[in-house]
Amino acid sequence: MTKKKINVGVVGYGFMGRTHSNAFGKVNQFFKLEHQPVLKAVCGRNAENVAAFAENWGYESSETDWRALVTRADIDLIDIATPNDSHAEIAIAAAAAGKMVMCEKPLAMNPSQAEEMVAAVEKAGVANMVWYNYRRVPAVTLAKQLIDEGKLGRIFHYRAKFLQDWTISKDIPQGGAGLWRLDVNAAGSGVTGDLLAHCIDTALWLNGGISQVTAMTETFIKERTHALTGKVEKVGIDDASAFLARFSNGSLATFEATRYARGHKALYTFEINGEHASIFWDLHDLHRLQYFAHSDEGRLRGWRSLHITDGDHPYMKNWWVPGLQIGYEHTFIHQVADFLGGLSDGKPAGPTFRDGLATDYVTDAVLRSAASGRWENVS
Amino acid sequence: MTKKKINVGVVGYGFMGRTHSNAFGKVNQFFKLEHQPVLKAVCGRNAENVAAFAENWGYESSETDWRALVTRADIDLIDIATPNDSHAEIAIAAAAAGKMVMCEKPLAMNPSQAEEMVAAVEKAGVANMVWYNYRRVPAVTLAKQLIDEGKLGRIFHYRAKFLQDWTISKDIPQGGAGLWRLDVNAAGSGVTGDLLAHCIDTALWLNGGISQVTAMTETFIKERTHALTGKVEKVGIDDASAFLARFSNGSLATFEATRYARGHKALYTFEINGEHASIFWDLHDLHRLQYFAHSDEGRLRGWRSLHITDGDHPYMKNWWVPGLQIGYEHTFIHQVADFLGGLSDGKPAGPTFRDGLATDYVTDAVLRSAASGRWENVS
Amino acid sequence: MTKKKINVGVVGYGFMGRTHSNAFGKVNQFFKLEHQPVLKAVCGRNAENVAAFAENWGYESSETDWRALVTRADIDLIDIATPNDSHAEIAIAAAAAGKMVMCEKPLAMNPSQAEEMVAAVEKAGVANMVWYNYRRVPAVTLAKQLIDEGKLGRIFHYRAKFLQDWTISKDIPQGGAGLWRLDVNAAGSGVTGDLLAHCIDTALWLNGGISQVTAMTETFIKERTHALTGKVEKVGIDDASAFLARFSNGSLATFEATRYARGHKALYTFEINGEHASIFWDLHDLHRLQYFAHSDEGRLRGWRSLHITDGDHPYMKNWWVPGLQIGYEHTFIHQVADFLGGLSDGKPAGPTFRDGLATDYVTDAVLRSAASGRWENVS
Amino acid sequence: MTKKKINVGVVGYGFMGRTHSNAFGKVNQFFKLEHQPVLKAVCGRNAENVAAFAENWGYESSETDWRALVTRADIDLIDIATPNDSHAEIAIAAAAAGKMVMCEKPLAMNPSQAEEMVAAVEKAGVANMVWYNYRRVPAVTLAKQLIDEGKLGRIFHYRAKFLQDWTISKDIPQGGAGLWRLDVNAAGSGVTGDLLAHCIDTALWLNGGISQVTAMTETFIKERTHALTGKVEKVGIDDASAFLARFSNGSLATFEATRYARGHKALYTFEINGEHASIFWDLHDLHRLQYFAHSDEGRLRGWRSLHITDGDHPYMKNWWVPGLQIGYEHTFIHQVADFLGGLSDGKPAGPTFRDGLATDYVTDAVLRSAASGRWENVS
Repeated sequence: MTKKKINVGVVGYGFMGRTHSNAFGKVNQFFKLEHQPVLKAVCGRNAENVAAFAENWGYESSETDWRALVTRADIDLIDIATPNDSHAEIAIAAAAAGKMVMCEKPLAMNPSQAEEMVAAVEKAGVANMVWYNYRRVPAVTLAKQLIDEGKLGRIFHYRAKFLQDWTISKDIPQGGAGLWRLDVNAAGSGVTGDLLAHCIDTALWLNGGISQVTAMTETFIKERTHALTGKVEKVGIDDASAFLARFSNGSLATFEATRYARGHKALYTFEINGEHASIFWDLHDLHRLQYFAHSDEGRLRGWRSLHITDGDHPYMKNWWVPGLQIGYEHTFIHQVADFLGGLSDGKPAGPTFRDGLATDYVTDAVLRSAASGRWENVS
Repeated sequence: MTKKKINVGVVGYGFMGRTHSNAFGKVNQFFKLEHQPVLKAVCGRNAENVAAFAENWGYESSETDWRALVTRADIDLIDIATPNDSHAEIAIAAAAAGKMVMCEKPLAMNPSQAEEMVAAVEKAGVANMVWYNYRRVPAVTLAKQLIDEGKLGRIFHYRAKFLQDWTISKDIPQGGAGLWRLDVNAAGSGVTGDLLAHCIDTALWLNGGISQVTAMTETFIKERTHALTGKVEKVGIDDASAFLARFSNGSLATFEATRYARGHKALYTFEINGEHASIFWDLHDLHRLQYFAHSDEGRLRGWRSLHITDGDHPYMKNWWVPGLQIGYEHTFIHQVADFLGGLSDGKPAGPTFRDGLATDYVTDAVLRSAASGRWENVS
Repeated sequence: MTKKKINVGVVGYGFMGRTHSNAFGKVNQFFKLEHQPVLKAVCGRNAENVAAFAENWGYESSETDWRALVTRADIDLIDIATPNDSHAEIAIAAAAAGKMVMCEKPLAMNPSQAEEMVAAVEKAGVANMVWYNYRRVPAVTLAKQLIDEGKLGRIFHYRAKFLQDWTISKDIPQGGAGLWRLDVNAAGSGVTGDLLAHCIDTALWLNGGISQVTAMTETFIKERTHALTGKVEKVGIDDASAFLARFSNGSLATFEATRYARGHKALYTFEINGEHASIFWDLHDLHRLQYFAHSDEGRLRGWRSLHITDGDHPYMKNWWVPGLQIGYEHTFIHQVADFLGGLSDGKPAGPTFRDGLATDYVTDAVLRSAASGRWENVS
Repeated sequence: MTKKKINVGVVGYGFMGRTHSNAFGKVNQFFKLEHQPVLKAVCGRNAENVAAFAENWGYESSETDWRALVTRADIDLIDIATPNDSHAEIAIAAAAAGKMVMCEKPLAMNPSQAEEMVAAVEKAGVANMVWYNYRRVPAVTLAKQLIDEGKLGRIFHYRAKFLQDWTISKDIPQGGAGLWRLDVNAAGSGVTGDLLAHCIDTALWLNGGISQVTAMTETFIKERTHALTGKVEKVGIDDASAFLARFSNGSLATFEATRYARGHKALYTFEINGEHASIFWDLHDLHRLQYFAHSDEGRLRGWRSLHITDGDHPYMKNWWVPGLQIGYEHTFIHQVADFLGGLSDGKPAGPTFRDGLATDYVTDAVLRSAASGRWENVS
């Protein structure tokens, strides 16, 4: 079977450049799809490093200027895996050049920038997606199915948190290799745009829109050496961020993210309490979903620990056999599979740029509320 | 060894009347103490029922009027196990009569009432205590020890929640036998004064004062049949309550309580993240404490599940042998043991009425904030 | 309601003396029963110590000679809480005196002794029971209910283990206060009669008879100071014991017990795999039962963690409210409640002495097999 | 950097053909190695199917006769991913042709066949390995490190089990596509050679040699339709197998495997109890290791749940960032990485064929003991 080739040009070759390259390279080995990504080019500023990356991952070529990549005739899809401050410019140029665009999250530095990006891809009519990969954890996708089937009934509560502990030391600089997330100029915000954005994207998908929030943020380490200047400078990002929210469906929520929760590396969890059933999920055991059904016989009601590795679980028939777990990297493969599937069936897979904008509206409201001390509407 | 007798008069014989009676009756069998409570009298409005209760628990007598009980010369200590709306009147009368006073939580219907109670016992110079029993779960007491020893270092985060699901049905009436907690006139508030109050008492004990809160509350079922009138009436209590807080020590907190979290019966949990260590505890497995120490060797760092049943764990040398767990009722026995110990050594065991007032200040700020939509100071 | 008094005389006042005293004292406060135990007398060799014990637990009198106790006219029931080597003599004398007899486990030092005890109580026609208390953990009783209802279907596998780590140090003497379980002359055997006996009693109750076993035992520390002689002597007990078994119902089993499993204090676990469902239980979280039902919808099949604290769980309506756990000591209270209930309804509650004998037959076969190196029939 | 190419020819394209193909294809993207496997050819009997498999995985060619493949001059390494009954013939031919040989487990149908295979590869002097992939779960490799460092001290106990439930239905045929493991002629034995072999390989690696075993096996479903004949025939495999063992180091062990443990898909677990520390691991949460250290302060001793995703955990610096788990397929990638590393440094990575033979000696003793009813020496 001859597949339709999609020539991919990736901008950025850091951590996310690796996860995306792996996903583009593996998707057709595990999923039957009409399309096949071709690793055409990868782009980075350091010619030697990006060439080595290209060789390692099997890219046909490398580039050092994203503007050159974006206009190459042999590229169908631009994938943006750079720090947040360059998303908008690259995405808008790619759309203008008629390329499909996939972009790392969060979509932009702020809602107005994100609005421009949405306008650009929609005007160009190009396929577009934001890499909120956690929607494609099979357990999370199953949660979505259960909710859509009405198994939970009326929702009362949503609670999510994303806890890390890797920036507790005051000796970590802001900015520099692997640390741009601590530099407000590159990242736009701290945990709000990084970790809470993941929690919010999932929440909007599973539970609908958020109408109002009240928030607090904190920067525990006020000054750090800046990697670019070598000087101790004021830290501009939020180290921790928490908010209360009301969803449009009447449910109440608590959200929290921090990089100061000793003992947690990447503990993204969410729980949803409905009238008939509840669901809990946890990134540290991503292959499990906790499920409680009130319809079970009274004596025998309890939280079920579902091991999401069976053929009837989302995505899992494409992998191994029951009992054998997959991991983090597979969420990116699923995302590519769904993106390509959307090209075939004409139903674009989310989260689109417009979905990414919706998350940016919430993170913006969170930051506004933390500053104002008031409840803020999500515009 | 002859023990000093403390003649106890208990007001109320519902659920809490049972836990207290059990505690007074068993404490000397397991703890070596100078004092011994004597179950002198129990008081309730239904003469037949209270007499049966008295016989079952070995009380020497029963009363139907708490005013009579409070002034009996043979009573040393009045224990209040009635709904919230009668705490103040009974406690103030008992103090005026020179009796020691133990009172169920929350201390009062509001801070001004609680202030009067504090003034009464302090003026009378009588020993006093509020039954925030969860401080005496051995795992929670161990948490307190670890914090006091400095094992956690600077605290960044505190998060607590108390989740139940027993009022989801709209057919449950407000008020009546066993249901006074749904009647705002008897309870003062809903989950804020009932469940959050427990979370707050523990938090103030473990992590110091709270300076500011922003809160939201919700009543999911707006109308219920009232047990006293038989009519469908507006529900006055809060079904769910959540708030963000800042502690005086600079740490950030989230608190939440609800009776609409399907799948949870009494899931009181708290987690504390410090610079050097973190702690997690959960009422559904109350005999365990989760502990993470950053000082462990890197490869071997992990959350330790401590099974709090050893002789060197708080209170446990008085019970069985390692590995054999105790339960809920034991927290009340520990509380009596500590109260009696405080009589001997002159160091009153907390939480005193003054400590209970501190919690009432926080719940009051929570309710004020939920109404105002603003951050409120804890006065 | 006037209750029928049962005058109890307890022999032994160590660890088990405490659990029994507590049970006799509390049972009527929590269970509605026709009968009521009266703590008439406790017996021990040291007059001062046993008098102090009697006072602490509210016994009316104390004795220093069990022969005197057994023949007292005011005693209805003799409860044996002494080391294993005295069970038979006391029980047989008590039965001969027409007393009801409750006896700590294992019933005897060997099957022939146990057979004499069974003959004695059956000839005398007195109520009798062995304190295999773990049958009365509510989660274990629920397991029994589920099996009896056929929820598991054909049973394929049974596996049980009881792991401890308290004798790893070679400095612990054999024999002496609290250590008689290390002295083969007092205990009869090591973990086989102590820990495996618990596993076996539960297994026979839940899964029926065992037909054959093959076993191995080991004594890791070969010599220890003997408390009585003060000399280093050969250790006669088994430190570890494991066996394979075939049940009469065709299921296969593994059993293991040891006091050399570092990290486990009293980890008694069992798991049963049936055609339709499986069950797992664990003494370290005794208030939970893990349950897997194949009849659940495929996607949503998982092990349910049942929190055995609801009113429809065995025994639990007598205690607190859902979510609030009970502990180890309650199993003894349940056992007394059932024993007394058996007196009322004429259906003797097990395990009777005859049931205890059945367990002794299995432990005997285990020890024989460990010696012979062959499969041994359970006679 | 130019890598040394290793031309690989894989025989078999079922489940294991997929895991191996994935491993050869990905290893160089994640591990810095001197060598690079080239997917030269894959061999299977159905020309069309094997060609489709070759295209999917990027093989340069396909073959339908393994004898042709084995003698191809452009092949350096023969990888055997076929049912057990063809391992020996292919491996011996490959060795004779001077090829390196990797072979799925168990190595052979019986020890004498395995001995021939060992002789063949050792005589030919070719690199060889058996795919006991679970050694390369990072948590399991960490266990090996801890044991080798002496952190556990003297070992008292080893217990392992491998529980599945996929053959409970009597409607499953023996033999045929994906079901050859139920056909004794293709598989050699049932769970003993399939599941127990994994448990034994890990045990020999972690805890040294086994000297003696006593075992039992059972076939619960005695007859099944045979896929080749279409007739109901006697089932020749063991559905369940359990044994007791004594290791050369004096420790005691229990082992069990079954395909009749309702609720378990692939629950391979092992626990090791040492004088100073204990370890527990579980394939259903393969990214975790449970660790108990007696050297921890008494109050704070507990089982640590290690989330094996940090850079200082085995293999993990090659993958993502802390907190993000890998899965089943990665164990095969690690195995190839170590095999290739062994080619570079001259230290062959295990398990070699000789190691695989050691496991076959144990499974043989297990089957002999199940037949004889006696303890059997591991020859």
